[in-house]
Amino acid sequence: MPTYKAPVEDALFLLNDVFQIERYNNLPGFADATPETIEAILAESAKFTEHVLQPLNRVGDTEGCTRNADASVTTPKGFKEAFKAQGEGGWLGISMPEEFGGQGLPKVLSTIIGEFQVSANQAFSMYGGLTQGAVASLLVHANDDIKKTYVPKMIAGEWTGTMNLTEPHCGTDLGLLRTKAVKQADGSYKISGTKIFISAGEHDLADNIIHLVLARIEGAPAGVKGISLFVVPKFLPKADGSVGEHNGVTCGSIEEKMGIHGNSTCVMNYDDATGWLIGEENKGLPAMFVMMNEARLGVSVQGLALSEVAYQNAVTYAKERLQGRSISGVKNPDKPADPIIVHPDVRRTLLSIRAFNEAARAFVIWSALRADVARKGNDEKEKQAAEDHMNLMMPVLKGVLTDTGFANTVAAQQMFGGHGYIAEHGMEQFVRDSRIAMIYEGANGIQALDLVGRKLGQNGGRAVMTFFNDVGAFIKENAEDEAMKPYIAPLKASLGHLQQATMWFMQNAMAKPDNAGAGSNDYMHLFGLVAMAYMWAQMAKAAQKKLANGANGASDRLNAKLVTGKFFMERMLPETGAHLARITTGADTVMALPAEAF
Amino acid sequence: MPTYKAPVEDALFLLNDVFQIERYNNLPGFADATPETIEAILAESAKFTEHVLQPLNRVGDTEGCTRNADASVTTPKGFKEAFKAQGEGGWLGISMPEEFGGQGLPKVLSTIIGEFQVSANQAFSMYGGLTQGAVASLLVHANDDIKKTYVPKMIAGEWTGTMNLTEPHCGTDLGLLRTKAVKQADGSYKISGTKIFISAGEHDLADNIIHLVLARIEGAPAGVKGISLFVVPKFLPKADGSVGEHNGVTCGSIEEKMGIHGNSTCVMNYDDATGWLIGEENKGLPAMFVMMNEARLGVSVQGLALSEVAYQNAVTYAKERLQGRSISGVKNPDKPADPIIVHPDVRRTLLSIRAFNEAARAFVIWSALRADVARKGNDEKEKQAAEDHMNLMMPVLKGVLTDTGFANTVAAQQMFGGHGYIAEHGMEQFVRDSRIAMIYEGANGIQALDLVGRKLGQNGGRAVMTFFNDVGAFIKENAEDEAMKPYIAPLKASLGHLQQATMWFMQNAMAKPDNAGAGSNDYMHLFGLVAMAYMWAQMAKAAQKKLANGANGASDRLNAKLVTGKFFMERMLPETGAHLARITTGADTVMALPAEAF
Repeated sequence: MPTYKAPVEDALFLLNDVFQIERYNNLPGFADATPETIEAILAESAKFTEHVLQPLNRVGDTEGCTRNADASVTTPKGFKEAFKAQGEGGWLGISMPEEFGGQGLPKVLSTIIGEFQVSANQAFSMYGGLTQGAVASLLVHANDDIKKTYVPKMIAGEWTGTMNLTEPHCGTDLGLLRTKAVKQADGSYKISGTKIFISAGEHDLADNIIHLVLARIEGAPAGVKGISLFVVPKFLPKADGSVGEHNGVTCGSIEEKMGIHGNSTCVMNYDDATGWLIGEENKGLPAMFVMMNEARLGVSVQGLALSEVAYQNAVTYAKERLQGRSISGVKNPDKPADPIIVHPDVRRTLLSIRAFNEAARAFVIWSALRADVARKGNDEKEKQAAEDHMNLMMPVLKGVLTDTGFANTVAAQQMFGGHGYIAEHGMEQFVRDSRIAMIYEGANGIQALDLVGRKLGQNGGRAVMTFFNDVGAFIKENAEDEAMKPYIAPLKASLGHLQQATMWFMQNAMAKPDNAGAGSNDYMHLFGLVAMAYMWAQMAKAAQKKLANGANGASDRLNAKLVTGKFFMERMLPETGAHLARITTGADTVMALPAEAF
Repeated sequence: MPTYKAPVEDALFLLNDVFQIERYNNLPGFADATPETIEAILAESAKFTEHVLQPLNRVGDTEGCTRNADASVTTPKGFKEAFKAQGEGGWLGISMPEEFGGQGLPKVLSTIIGEFQVSANQAFSMYGGLTQGAVASLLVHANDDIKKTYVPKMIAGEWTGTMNLTEPHCGTDLGLLRTKAVKQADGSYKISGTKIFISAGEHDLADNIIHLVLARIEGAPAGVKGISLFVVPKFLPKADGSVGEHNGVTCGSIEEKMGIHGNSTCVMNYDDATGWLIGEENKGLPAMFVMMNEARLGVSVQGLALSEVAYQNAVTYAKERLQGRSISGVKNPDKPADPIIVHPDVRRTLLSIRAFNEAARAFVIWSALRADVARKGNDEKEKQAAEDHMNLMMPVLKGVLTDTGFANTVAAQQMFGGHGYIAEHGMEQFVRDSRIAMIYEGANGIQALDLVGRKLGQNGGRAVMTFFNDVGAFIKENAEDEAMKPYIAPLKASLGHLQQATMWFMQNAMAKPDNAGAGSNDYMHLFGLVAMAYMWAQMAKAAQKKLANGANGASDRLNAKLVTGKFFMERMLPETGAHLARITTGADTVMALPAEAF
C-alpha cells in the first residue's frame, strides 16, 4: 500500500527562504500569515491529508462511483465522512473571503494545501477543488443575492460546485455548444441540453450541487460570442436557505474511465432546469476565462502532486528492495543483495523526478504569489506585472507540469518492476489518475498553442520580455559568484535557447502561422525548462545563503538541494537545445502531406 | 470502438525493397518464401488478426480472466474459439520446424505476423507467444523424447507453454531464486516453490499447459550457477500422448493488474510437482539466455504493435473530429469546424508516432532476418556477425521500442481529448496494455545496463564496431547523392554523437563503472535513434529508387515515406545531442547523495 508524507519543510523553505513571503505583508491577508501560522496550518493539513485522505485513495479506485436506478450516485466508502471533516476543518475556505466564512489567507497557502490533498487522494480532492473553482467564479461575477445564497454553504462544504462546459460534439471549441437557455418572466432561465465529462456532477457528499453551466440564450449570436454563464442548483434553494424541490437536472450516466474512479464523471441532462444568469448575457466565456488561470494553476498542481507521491513511494521501494549488487562493489555484504538504490540508473530516475518536483513546486508557489498580487495588489504596475505573469505562465505550468508529472509517475512505477504493474502497490493508479491532468482544463496541445499563438505576442510581448529581463538580471547579479557557477552557466545557455526560439517565431510565424503551431509543443517545454532552471538557481542561492548562516540543523537537506539542482542543470536542461533545433525546422515537413496520406 | 488494419504493404516494402529478402534464398526455408507466398500469408494473417482477434480485444479487457474455486481459470468470452482457430490455421507454426508440424518458414515472417497479432489483441497474443517461446527453448535444449511428446501439440495450439522465472523476492536477480528440485529414482524431479507473474499460467484455452521452470536442485551451488531448467506439465502426459493425472502445480491466484486483462497473470504453486530436466544440471540460466534474444525481439514488437494500432485510431479520429479552425485559414467552410488534422501540433504528434513505427518495423525486420542468419546461416563469418547483431541490438530494440511505443500510445490517446480517457474508445486500453512491455522480459533499465555493461565491450567491441562501419559505409556510398542529403547529413551527425558517447564510456567507465550506469539509459536511446535513422536512410534510398523506376502505382505511399523520414531527421534525431550531453556529465552528481537523503 502506498504511503504519503506532505512536503511541509520544502514548502516552508520556498515560502520563507526563496520567495520571502514576509515581503508581501502589505497585502490583505498576508499580515495574518505569519511564519508560525503558516507552519501550523501546513502541519495540520499534512495530518489531515496523510491520515484521512490518503487511506481512502485506494478504495476510491477499486470501488469507484455507482449510479443508482434513481439517478443518484454513491461515492466510495469513507468519502462522505472525509468530505464532512474537510468542510468542518475549514480546508475549503483557507483563501476564501472572511465575509463568506473563509479565512481570507493568501492564495499561495491554499495552493500548497491543494498539492497535499491531491497527492493524498486526487479523485477526492476534485470535489472540493471544483467547489472552490465555482465559488471563485461566483465571487467575481454573481450578484449579491446569489453570492449570499450559495457561497457560504459551498465554502463550508455543505454544498459543492461543478463546471459544465463540454458537450458531446464540443470540447476545445466551445463556440459549437448547443445547450440552450430560455428567459422566463421572473428573470430566471430554463436550461436544456446535455453536458458530458462533468466531474463531481452527481454524488452523495453534500446536500446540494451547484452547477455552473455555459449555455446559449435563445436568439444569441452564433459562436463564442453568444455564450452565457448560468448557475443551476440541483435543488432549488428556499428563502430560508434550505434546499427545496429537485431542479430539472439529472445524471444520465457515469463514464467508465482510465482513472480518478473515486470522482464521478457524469453525463448531465438539463431538461428545462431553472437557472440564473451570472454576469452579462453572451459574456459567459470571458466570465469563465477570468477563472481559467487559477483553474489551470490547480491542474498544474495535480501534475506535481502525483509526481511527488509517486516519487516518495519509489524511494521507499528502492531502499527496501534487495536485488543485484552495486557495480562499484557490494554495499550490503550481510544480505543476499544490495537495495536497488545503489544502482546509478535508479538514482538517475529518482533524481529526475525529484529535480522536477522541487522546481515545479517553486514554480507553482512563485505563481500563486503572483496570483495573490494580481488579485490583491495595491500598486497598479505590480498588479499588471503579476497579471502578465499569470497570462504568460499558466499554459506553461499547466502543459509542462502535467506532461512531466505524468511521465514521472510512469518512471516511478518502473522502479517497482513487475510489482509496479500490479494494482496492490498503487503505483499504476498514480499513472492512471495523473493521466487526466494532461487533458482537462484545456488539453496540453491547446496550452502550447495558447502560449505561442496568444500569450507570447500579447501587449507587444511585454510579459515575455519581463521574464527575460528578470532572469537576465538574476544571471548578471550572480555572474561573479563562484558557488553559483554550476547553476548560472546552464541557466544562461538555456535562456539563450529560449530567446532564439522566441526570435525565430517573431521572424517566421507572422507570415506563416503554421510555423508557430508546429513548434508550439517544443516551445512550451523549452519555456518550462528555463523557468524551472530559474527556480533552481534561486533555490541554490537561498540554500547557499542559509548554509552560510549556519543552516539551523538543516544542512543535509540544503546540501541535497544543491546536488538536486546540479542534477537538473546537468541532466534535464540539455533538452533545451533539442527543442530549439526542432522548432527552427519549421512547419514545411509537418504540413507536407495531404490528410489522406495519414 | 477501435479498429485495426494490418500494415501489409509496409512490411512487403521492407522485405522486398529495403532488405531484399531474395538475397537470402540460399538459407533453409527462404526458397519457399517467394514474394507471392509471403504476400499471401501476410494477407491471410491480416484477415485473421483484423476480423478474429481485434474484435476480442475490448471484451478481453472488460471481462478479464477469472480464477474459479477449483483453481481453474476462465478466459474472456470468445478467446477459446479464437485460440482454436489460431492453432488450426497453423499460425503458431509458421517458422517452426516441419518435422514437428511447423511450416519451416523464416523467422522474419512469424515476427511480422506477431506484430499484427499484438496490434489486434496483445493479451490474446501472449498465450501463443509464450507457447512459441517455450517451444523454442525445448527445441534447443530438450532431449528427443521430450521434444516428441510436447512440441507437436504446442505448435498445433492444443497445449500451451509458459516461462516460470520470477519469485516474490527475486525478479531481475535470478541468483536469489529458491524453488527447489529433488531428484527421483526414475530420473525425474519433484519441484516445489512459488512463482509469480506467470503469464498464461492457467487458463481454459488448451488441454494441457507446459511450464518451463527455473529451480535449484538440492545441493546445487548458490547464486546463478546453481539454477536448472525443468519442464513441468499441468497434466502428466500418458504414453499414448493424451493427458493423464493432474500434476502438483496449481494457480494460487491471478493478479489484479493495470492492463492485459485478457491474459491470466498467475501465482503458480509447485508442490512436489513432477518435472524433467531440460539441458544440463545447473545450466538453466544459460539455457534461458539462448532464448532470451528472441523473446526480447518479441517484446520489442509489442512496443511497435501498440504504437501502430494507437496511431491508426488517432488518425481516424483526427480526420473525423471537427473542432476549431486551421490557423492558416478555414479548410472546411461548409462545416461548423475543421477536422483536427489541420492543426500542425496534431500532425506533429501523428508524424512522430508514424516516423517511429516505420523505423521500428524496419529495425525489427532487419533484426529478425539477422536472427534467421544466426540460426540457419551456412557461412560462419556471416553467422557470427548475425549473432553479434542480436547480442548488441536486442537490449536496444527491447528498451527503445517499448519505451517509445508506450509513449506513443499516450500521445495517440491525447489526440482524443477527454474521449481518450474514457474506456469505450479503447485508447486508454492501449496505454495500459503497452505499459507492461517496458517491464517484463528484463525491465528497460536492465536492458540499458546489459547494453553498456556487457554488450558494448563483448569481443573487444566487435559488434558495435561492425555497426559503426556499416553505417559509415552507407553514409560514404550516398555522400554525393543530392536527393539523399536530407537523410545522410543528420545520420552522420547522430552517428558522431553515438561514437563520441561510446568513446566516452571507454575512457571513463572502466575505472569507474558508475559512469556507465549513470549514462546507460541515455546511451540506449541514443543508440536506438541512430539505428532508426539508419533504417530511415535505407528506406528513403529504396523509396527513391522505386519512384525512379515508375513506382508501380505506389508513388503517394513512397512520397509519404520520404516526408516521414525527413520528419524523423528534423524532429526526432536532434535528441541525440541531448543524450550525449547528459552521458558526458558522468556519475558524480548522480551518486553524490547518501541513500538516506532520498
